[in-house]
Amino acid sequence: MKHYISALVENKAGVLARTSGLFARRGFNIDSLAVGETDDPTVSRVTIVVDGDEYIADQVTKQLGKLVDVRIVKQLDPDHMTQREAVLVKVKIDAERRSEIYDLVKIMNCDVVDLSHTTLMIEFNDRPARVDLLVELLSKYEIIEIARTGAIALQKGSGTIYDEEE
Amino acid sequence: MKHYISALVENKAGVLARTSGLFARRGFNIDSLAVGETDDPTVSRVTIVVDGDEYIADQVTKQLGKLVDVRIVKQLDPDHMTQREAVLVKVKIDAERRSEIYDLVKIMNCDVVDLSHTTLMIEFNDRPARVDLLVELLSKYEIIEIARTGAIALQKGSGTIYDEEE
Repeated sequence: MKHYISALVENKAGVLARTSGLFARRGFNIDSLAVGETDDPTVSRVTIVVDGDEYIADQVTKQLGKLVDVRIVKQLDPDHMTQREAVLVKVKIDAERRSEIYDLVKIMNCDVVDLSHTTLMIEFNDRPARVDLLVELLSKYEIIEIARTGAIALQKGSGTIYDEEE
Repeated sequence: MKHYISALVENKAGVLARTSGLFARRGFNIDSLAVGETDDPTVSRVTIVVDGDEYIADQVTKQLGKLVDVRIVKQLDPDHMTQREAVLVKVKIDAERRSEIYDLVKIMNCDVVDLSHTTLMIEFNDRPARVDLLVELLSKYEIIEIARTGAIALQKGSGTIYDEEE
């Protein structure tokens, strides 16, 4: 099962190295890691997706909480969160399959952001599982290049990462 | 100026730590770092945004290229790339400002993905500069929580990261 862990970290050189070094040393299997600015320039928000059981997720959360530059760390409730991931995919197109690919783009609600005589660049932003589906569907054609952001997530409703654990 | 560097790296524990450790040791100022899977399960694609002059960007690229687990690394041409970043923002709403916020969401082409009596969750996927603009516009209201993915980018046209440098 995939566990989503969010952390607010000091935005300075070395924090990311210490954070990812922790995973490397302990051999934790990280599915993805996304780091973005927040509205506070001194703080970045890291979203980590861990594939494994409850115990592994708890360990990752606990160890992260021990790092000095990590201000807050929290596991998100899988039944009560919204996840997103962005992807850019460049696909080869030819006369024969052009309309088939265009149909797929339309059905999946992607946007075409660039076009050449032989290629098409698609952008897509959805739940990571939907991004997986798009990549799987496009793999029938020739994917030339792909860039995924890794997942981000926020808990639903009015609650936040700042709330005390119940 | 912001430089976009893309790298294809072996998808195994420790690579991210070595990559980010490199920046920490040398004190490079990383704007963002996004790590995502590719269509090849053994390879991840890392997008690094460095704020600085040409020399710094060249140094980062060169040093990255020396890491054993980095297969390919390339600076993207700023005049010839497409960038994207996803963001989730939770904003406080009240009766007075509700319609003002709704107008902003509409004008910026965001989607509302969750709603409570007092909060609104917005998703947005665009160029990082447009994400900056959205955050700046929303900062007039109360941003409760925000998660950004960091930027990804692909070069336009049919060229790819695999092409030989000219």
